[in-house]
Amino acid sequence: MRLSSDIQALVTQREKDKCLNAPFYNAAEILDLDLAVIFGQHWIFVAVAPELPEPGDCVTVEVGKASVLLLRGDDMEVRAFHNVCRHRGARLIDERATTIGNIVCRYHGWSYNEDGALILAEHMGADFDKSCHGLKPVHVRSIAGLIFICLAENPPADIEEMARVMEPYLAPHDIANCKVAHSSDLIEEGNWKLTMENNRECYHCEGNHPQLTVPLSEFGFGFSPDEMDERRSDDVKKYTDSIERDHKHWESCGLPSAEEEHLANVTGFRTMRLPLMWAGESHTLDTKVASKKLLGSFTDPKLGGLSFWTHPNSWHHFMSDHIVTFSILPIAPDRTLVRTTWLVHKDAIEGEDYSLDNLTQVWTMTNLQDAMLVRLAQLGSEQPAYEPGPYSRFTEPHVEAFCDWYIKRLQDHFASSKTGIAAE
Amino acid sequence: MRLSSDIQALVTQREKDKCLNAPFYNAAEILDLDLAVIFGQHWIFVAVAPELPEPGDCVTVEVGKASVLLLRGDDMEVRAFHNVCRHRGARLIDERATTIGNIVCRYHGWSYNEDGALILAEHMGADFDKSCHGLKPVHVRSIAGLIFICLAENPPADIEEMARVMEPYLAPHDIANCKVAHSSDLIEEGNWKLTMENNRECYHCEGNHPQLTVPLSEFGFGFSPDEMDERRSDDVKKYTDSIERDHKHWESCGLPSAEEEHLANVTGFRTMRLPLMWAGESHTLDTKVASKKLLGSFTDPKLGGLSFWTHPNSWHHFMSDHIVTFSILPIAPDRTLVRTTWLVHKDAIEGEDYSLDNLTQVWTMTNLQDAMLVRLAQLGSEQPAYEPGPYSRFTEPHVEAFCDWYIKRLQDHFASSKTGIAAE
Amino acid sequence: MRLSSDIQALVTQREKDKCLNAPFYNAAEILDLDLAVIFGQHWIFVAVAPELPEPGDCVTVEVGKASVLLLRGDDMEVRAFHNVCRHRGARLIDERATTIGNIVCRYHGWSYNEDGALILAEHMGADFDKSCHGLKPVHVRSIAGLIFICLAENPPADIEEMARVMEPYLAPHDIANCKVAHSSDLIEEGNWKLTMENNRECYHCEGNHPQLTVPLSEFGFGFSPDEMDERRSDDVKKYTDSIERDHKHWESCGLPSAEEEHLANVTGFRTMRLPLMWAGESHTLDTKVASKKLLGSFTDPKLGGLSFWTHPNSWHHFMSDHIVTFSILPIAPDRTLVRTTWLVHKDAIEGEDYSLDNLTQVWTMTNLQDAMLVRLAQLGSEQPAYEPGPYSRFTEPHVEAFCDWYIKRLQDHFASSKTGIAAE
Repeated sequence: MRLSSDIQALVTQREKDKCLNAPFYNAAEILDLDLAVIFGQHWIFVAVAPELPEPGDCVTVEVGKASVLLLRGDDMEVRAFHNVCRHRGARLIDERATTIGNIVCRYHGWSYNEDGALILAEHMGADFDKSCHGLKPVHVRSIAGLIFICLAENPPADIEEMARVMEPYLAPHDIANCKVAHSSDLIEEGNWKLTMENNRECYHCEGNHPQLTVPLSEFGFGFSPDEMDERRSDDVKKYTDSIERDHKHWESCGLPSAEEEHLANVTGFRTMRLPLMWAGESHTLDTKVASKKLLGSFTDPKLGGLSFWTHPNSWHHFMSDHIVTFSILPIAPDRTLVRTTWLVHKDAIEGEDYSLDNLTQVWTMTNLQDAMLVRLAQLGSEQPAYEPGPYSRFTEPHVEAFCDWYIKRLQDHFASSKTGIAAE
Repeated sequence: MRLSSDIQALVTQREKDKCLNAPFYNAAEILDLDLAVIFGQHWIFVAVAPELPEPGDCVTVEVGKASVLLLRGDDMEVRAFHNVCRHRGARLIDERATTIGNIVCRYHGWSYNEDGALILAEHMGADFDKSCHGLKPVHVRSIAGLIFICLAENPPADIEEMARVMEPYLAPHDIANCKVAHSSDLIEEGNWKLTMENNRECYHCEGNHPQLTVPLSEFGFGFSPDEMDERRSDDVKKYTDSIERDHKHWESCGLPSAEEEHLANVTGFRTMRLPLMWAGESHTLDTKVASKKLLGSFTDPKLGGLSFWTHPNSWHHFMSDHIVTFSILPIAPDRTLVRTTWLVHKDAIEGEDYSLDNLTQVWTMTNLQDAMLVRLAQLGSEQPAYEPGPYSRFTEPHVEAFCDWYIKRLQDHFASSKTGIAAE
Repeated sequence: MRLSSDIQALVTQREKDKCLNAPFYNAAEILDLDLAVIFGQHWIFVAVAPELPEPGDCVTVEVGKASVLLLRGDDMEVRAFHNVCRHRGARLIDERATTIGNIVCRYHGWSYNEDGALILAEHMGADFDKSCHGLKPVHVRSIAGLIFICLAENPPADIEEMARVMEPYLAPHDIANCKVAHSSDLIEEGNWKLTMENNRECYHCEGNHPQLTVPLSEFGFGFSPDEMDERRSDDVKKYTDSIERDHKHWESCGLPSAEEEHLANVTGFRTMRLPLMWAGESHTLDTKVASKKLLGSFTDPKLGGLSFWTHPNSWHHFMSDHIVTFSILPIAPDRTLVRTTWLVHKDAIEGEDYSLDNLTQVWTMTNLQDAMLVRLAQLGSEQPAYEPGPYSRFTEPHVEAFCDWYIKRLQDHFASSKTGIAAE
């Protein structure tokens, strides 16, 4: 597993419509490769605009070994820099979130402005050239308030396609006028790809997510037509009809709702507005809105749930009253951070317009249930008897789409490294 | 230490009657080899029949990275399977012990019957062949209620010799009619071979085991004739006479008692019935039986202690009233699980027929004392100044027998891998 | 990073007056090399004489994987041995400090006298030669009560130069008649070289050490002449004048005070007696002595602070009333032990002559502040964006001196290994 040739062989051997081979979930060398090739070369979802609403607001994120600081400037632009001083290399901002004037290193006081330029460095002598010692910038792109960064020098250009397609879907939810109601960092004891695979199907929902399956219908995520009885067929027809009816209604309200699938893109993504069950309003246990203050200029609470999934590391649910976003960040081959953020209208008042408990309980419980499943999958993948099993073509096509994308990205990486030697 | 050629050199260099070289206790590569060659190819003691007395009773054990589930079927047979689903590879049974109907995966509901056959897998389509996706079986063998498993495809055949020799010794203690009175999992901070070496001598008993040396005599485990004074010689003679007398008595009761040593076998083992001191009945602080309900059809409590030692990972003590078994499982180069199980007659009632404290205290204390010694030996082996020291030929011959067996097993492994490349 | 040739390339590439490349702070292979070449071949400060004042007093220290026991014999000599039994390799002394008669292994009772000779080993038979199984000695050297050890067979001879230069500086503080008032073990989350670099400058003091900068003047540690305004120039002149005046006074009292810099020696060191601010007596918050009982034959409390820095792992401050010593020991690439010991006159009585709080607070707080800075520097060095930045030639020349010494020691190591293969 030490040589890139071993990994290349594994990439080549990958069988379609089956789980990945065990080393993709276990091997430290493959996590290093994932961090270099997947997280180091693609657009990574890391934050939402309401996390840093004011000039001077600063947020740090850890993408593998890279610590990146996001800073909103006086011009309201969000800029990103590597969180490391150019003098003795100290980490600059140690907090997860803070508000600052300049970026000042605690070690020896070197100070940088919001453009990353070094503006103060004592005792360096008259001949010292500050202009050579600015912070190293990181690419950053906001799509309707969802903040993506790219650590590569030349980021994938098709972020523009995602922006063009997604902005009409997202804009009505008006993220800019949201606030963070709650945020949670959950560490799952599994490889980041198991976290992603788990997100890309709802085959496991019925048996494991008693809360999530209140608002969501299992039929929104595929089923085998061979196993339909009369009752099930009726349920499926009802659900299919409701999609058609709801989409027509939502589109007439100016809300794009149809499925868009661009999963084979370098910046792969998919979106769809899904009907919700019962009251049909939100991801809550009573399926009604959790927050009285609807987002944007919405007046109808019953807008279903717009889901947005991106490669390699995020998913999002947009309802009429609140938004839930998920950012997935690898920590170790068998440890992954799931950062969940709940947004409500910035004028909504806790205790009055919404209760935190009601707002967060469906996804808090669902996350914990998924963490348990990911842990079991990780434990299984570490066993010598593990063998990649088959995906259902009815309920797991998007798991396959994720794995296929992942394997193709590695293939492209190896193809573009002329010598065939791994990046690291 | 990375190449198997380095390990082969260490194996070849091993000097008889001396401790192993440090890497055998420290190197991650050698633990991997131990797991593959020793724990992956030999019969491993993992459980006793009374842990799963009823149909549907299920126990899981972790042998290195392999998780194995033991399940008693409706036909009362115990079967063993790799504890991993054939779909997405999730661990199937997460509990140490449970009772189940079918084996149902929590992830997507795939279900297997007691033979390991896949009997339910939803959404896989009409053309899916369940018969190709049964659980992977593991070899399992019960010797008078002691359960051994073997992860190899072709297990060592000489388990039959151990069964033939041992069953007459063990059968009178009637494990099938025992229950588990107590079980403890202790993690020793040392290599599994240091745990085994520590078990294979009682040279350290006098200075470290104030409880164990009440029922056990130091002279049962060797001594140097050169250091005998008159008092000691008298004691030795008394002890030797008592063995002879007791063995004669026990054999006349139908209890085989003589030493049987088969330590050079692939499935190496040794047994002997040892006199106990004072009341001579049991491994207790007052040397009397801990449980009033004697095992099997025993009426005489004074049957000494039948000890049974196996390569590579167990030892056992059988008295007239209770049984103690020890299963040794490596966790890391410097961490080892010692699983101790105390059995009494299934009809014995706690508080009435036995007190848990009295039953368990000798071996609970002895285990803790051994854990401290194993930790000191591990710490020493990690020092650059460590040098394999000499074993006493009087008090440590079975330590040498264990190391010699271990080294021979590795030699055979390297000899049988034609290319000389390690298994992994 | 696996091959010594990679490390040699890094050593060769090192740019003067810049931080080291990241692997010197992160790579496990380089820590192994540091332990072998730096900590394994040089004189390492590990203890002070008052830690083991009486015959039989014993102290253990861990230098990398080597555990060393220091024992004061009946002849009052301190001897050092590898802390590992020659029988089964068990660690001999498990405590950090204890008092013993002979050195007795807990495992099987093998016993060694204060010279390390094996004097008891039971059951080894009449032909066993005890004389071949003595403890392995370690070189030990006390300089005026500061105890250094060297793990190499042939220790650097220039310890004699350090002893010759330093004894006149240290002797008046009379360590032999001190006692340990307090000792603390702090684990910093950074590489040992970051701990050392942090110690070798006070550029960071003004912004981070509110307590330490009460007695210490920033001008004692360099400044850029280009950034002087009138006020600063006045302060500098005052400080320079005070050094001259104080040194003249102290020398006239028989206290050598001038700077001695021997940082390019294999056993590199530097010393200087520094004026203290305000009352000028001690490293305390009120700058007065912490202990009423002055050391040695001192009568004047105002003797400033004699600082003594050694490569690779110590620094010390000697005042008229107390001494603080620091021993730096690597634990992992990103973990380092800082062992701080406060000494006062052996007749000083806590609560009467000194308060522990007043005695220890400046360096307790300073250590915690440095630990935070070292952690930030370590975190930064682990980021892919880390790039060695420039040292100030005014405030960081001794950081450069440390790095230069370190790199030269590695160069010499590689030059002397004929084959160019690393020691390990």
